[in-house]
This record gives sequence, C-alpha cells and structure tokens, in this order.
Amino acid sequence: MASFFSQRRTHVEIPRLRPRPSRQGSENVNRVALGELTPDLASFLGRAAYLQLTNFETAAGAVTTAPHTRGKNAMSRVAHQSLTKYEGLVAELTRTGHDPVATMEPFRRAIDQFHRDTRGADWYENLVTVFVTAGLLDDFFVRLAGGLPEDQTKRIAALLTPDAGSKFIIAELLEAIEANPRLASRLAMWGRRLVGDTLLIARSALAVPENTAPDEARLEPVFTELIAAHTRRMDALGLTA
Amino acid sequence: MASFFSQRRTHVEIPRLRPRPSRQGSENVNRVALGELTPDLASFLGRAAYLQLTNFETAAGAVTTAPHTRGKNAMSRVAHQSLTKYEGLVAELTRTGHDPVATMEPFRRAIDQFHRDTRGADWYENLVTVFVTAGLLDDFFVRLAGGLPEDQTKRIAALLTPDAGSKFIIAELLEAIEANPRLASRLAMWGRRLVGDTLLIARSALAVPENTAPDEARLEPVFTELIAAHTRRMDALGLTA
Repeated sequence: MASFFSQRRTHVEIPRLRPRPSRQGSENVNRVALGELTPDLASFLGRAAYLQLTNFETAAGAVTTAPHTRGKNAMSRVAHQSLTKYEGLVAELTRTGHDPVATMEPFRRAIDQFHRDTRGADWYENLVTVFVTAGLLDDFFVRLAGGLPEDQTKRIAALLTPDAGSKFIIAELLEAIEANPRLASRLAMWGRRLVGDTLLIARSALAVPENTAPDEARLEPVFTELIAAHTRRMDALGLTA
Repeated sequence: MASFFSQRRTHVEIPRLRPRPSRQGSENVNRVALGELTPDLASFLGRAAYLQLTNFETAAGAVTTAPHTRGKNAMSRVAHQSLTKYEGLVAELTRTGHDPVATMEPFRRAIDQFHRDTRGADWYENLVTVFVTAGLLDDFFVRLAGGLPEDQTKRIAALLTPDAGSKFIIAELLEAIEANPRLASRLAMWGRRLVGDTLLIARSALAVPENTAPDEARLEPVFTELIAAHTRRMDALGLTA
C-alpha cells in the first residue's frame, strides 16, 4: 500500500502531497504515530462531527433504499447511532467553547463531495458504504484522538467505538451474495473505491505543518492498521479488499 | 372542506368512499369522534410506526438537501426526534407481544408511495413537508389513540406530542420567503398538495367496518380539528392553507 496515495488520482479537495527525495534511507524510516499528526481540538472535532453527520446521512439513505421493512428497521438503528455520535461531538465542541456550526463549516465542501462520491447505486452498495466508510472513519478518529488531552482521548474513544450496524450488514450482504454470486465482484470493486475515497478524506484531517511535504514513506505506515482493519471488514463479507 | 375527499383524485392506495344518500338530515349529522374509529392496537401501532419512519426519512432527506451547515444541524435534531418516536412505537409493539417488522409490513406499500409523493423538489419544499406532514400525522395519531386503552392513550400522547422542528422551520421559511416573495405561492401550492396526501393516508388508518361506506358527512367532521391545526401551521409561515 506504500504507493496507494501516489498512484491514485484525486477527486476530493485535499492537498496532494508529492513524494520527494527522502532525507532518510528507507531502512530507518521514522514511523509517525497518528497522535503526532492530531490537529487542534476544534479542527479535530469539527471535521469528525461533520463526517459523522455524513455517516448518518448515508445510513438514513440506506433506510430509504431498503427493499424490506426488516432492513429499514435495522438501518434506522445504525442511523440513530451515528446521530448519537454526531451529537456527542457537537456537545464536546460546545463544552470546549466552540460554536459547532461555525467550526464544522470549513469542512463542509470537501466532505459533501466525499458524501456524493460514496453514495451507492443501490441498497447493497449503500450497506457496503456504511460498513466501510463509517468503520474506517470511526477507527481513524479514535486513533487520531490519541494526540488530544487524555480526558478527550477517552471520551472520543467511548463515543466513537460502539458499532450498531456490522452484524446486520454482514448477514444481509452474505445472504445477498450467496443468492447472487455476481454481486460479489461489483461490491468488491465498490469497496476498493470507497477505501480510496475514505483514506483520502481521513488523510486530509492530518495536521501537516504548512510548507512541509512529509514524504510518503513516513506517512504511509500511519494507515497500515486502518487498512488492515478494512481488509478484515471486506474478509467478513467474503470479498477481496 | 366537506367536499375535500370527494373532489380530490386519489393516487394513494386507500379505499375510496363514495358519498351516498344520507339517511339523516344534515342538521342532525351524527358527528363521529375519532376514538370510535380507532383500529386494533397492532394496526394502530404498526401504521403509526411506519409513518413515523417515513417522517424520519423526510427529515433526514432535509439534512442532505440543506444548503448550509446550520440547517443540517437543525434538521438532524428533527430527524433524531422522529427516530425516538419511531423507536417508542416499536417498543410498544414489542411490549404488547407483536413482532414490529411483521406488524408494519402490510402498511409499507401505501406509505412508501405517500413518501415518494410528498418528497419536495428542494430544501424549502422538504421543510414544508416535514412541518405539514409530521405535524398533521402526529396530531392525528394522538387523537386516534383516544380509542385505545387509557394507559396506551397516555403513552402515545407523551411519545408523539414533542415537536423539535417547528421553531427552526418557521424561522427558516419566513426568512426565505422574505428574501424571495415568489417562493410563497410555490410553497402554498405545495402545502395544499401535502395536506391532501396526508389526510388521505390518515383516513386510511380509520377502522371502517367492512362492507360499510360511512357517508362523507359523518366522516368529514372528524378531520375538522386536524385541518384547523394545519391552517394554523400554514398561517405561521404566512401562507394560505
């Protein structure tokens, strides 16, 4: 995955970081812990909150596209959980003296584009979107919160860790793929696109000092665990990551 | 409004009741209290729950079409309230020994059609939809619950009465209409269509004994208070009902 970011064409508005000649040999790459790239609290919470609102919209869209009442009911619970997470992040903003709406505002445009790009064509794609993007983003922000003050780190982890949807989504998709094996390749493709868009929007949250371009080799390991977790998610669906 | 149902062309799947020669003079019309037309508990809760899920979807759709972060944030609270109401109705179904999904199922097709028919073309129409349809339906089910056992009546009223959205929606629409007065006639037209569709879907919830066709003159007064409340809602927007 070391070349993931450099190979991929961007269509999300985030700074593109070009590989540059490394000052270090690859054998002594200085692996960057995600906590070292944590932005200031307001940026962290504003971006995490607006992305969570997008997770909510995706889950709510799945409620509407559900082909059966059972699916609507199950996805309404997932939507509810995203709303609870969103409201928890908004409450953290308020508690720390920030105006939630104004703090989220700068992230709206890029994240709305992310939302449009990750909207599935049908119920199954929408389920994969919820599973892949919300899973990866919650993972990411829990890890990134490691660079916040300790009490914040704990509260963010408690807020973002619960997972209401995976069990239903996995069962529903496994059943659909068994009934229609051709669905597997379409959903595997969709999952690959999603992980690309999601890693890019996650990466745009990293605090990279202005006028510096950290080399790919230093930044990439940051995402190793996130990608491993993504691969496990796709495995759970019987799909190739 | 006595001729509302007979003049309007139906496109929602509900039984059409034709006016028939009345056996009573209009001066001694036997006004039917809504509580006398309350269906059995399962039908009441199943239909109310599925309609509430539709209210949620409409509010969530407004989150997505909101042109600003402030609007997304405000409508997310409205969506949350609808979810809470939905979950309360589902909990009542479970508590009384009914399978929520199976109980909602028979109402899905007609209500999904209602949802499609009442989806606005933009943010402003979506706000009117939330305001008009959720307001009228919550009113309606609180009144209809009058025919349930007393403890149910109280619980349903406590569940469905809270209103999270009106204040924001009224302020937002008044501001938009002031900035663009031509919006008023479009939204007034939209409100008229909505009240028609909503009264029809509400009417389909009434327990009308099989093989009987109650005359319009007896049924219409049932809706008088609902229509009065609707007129007050439109007045609050400065629009003609």
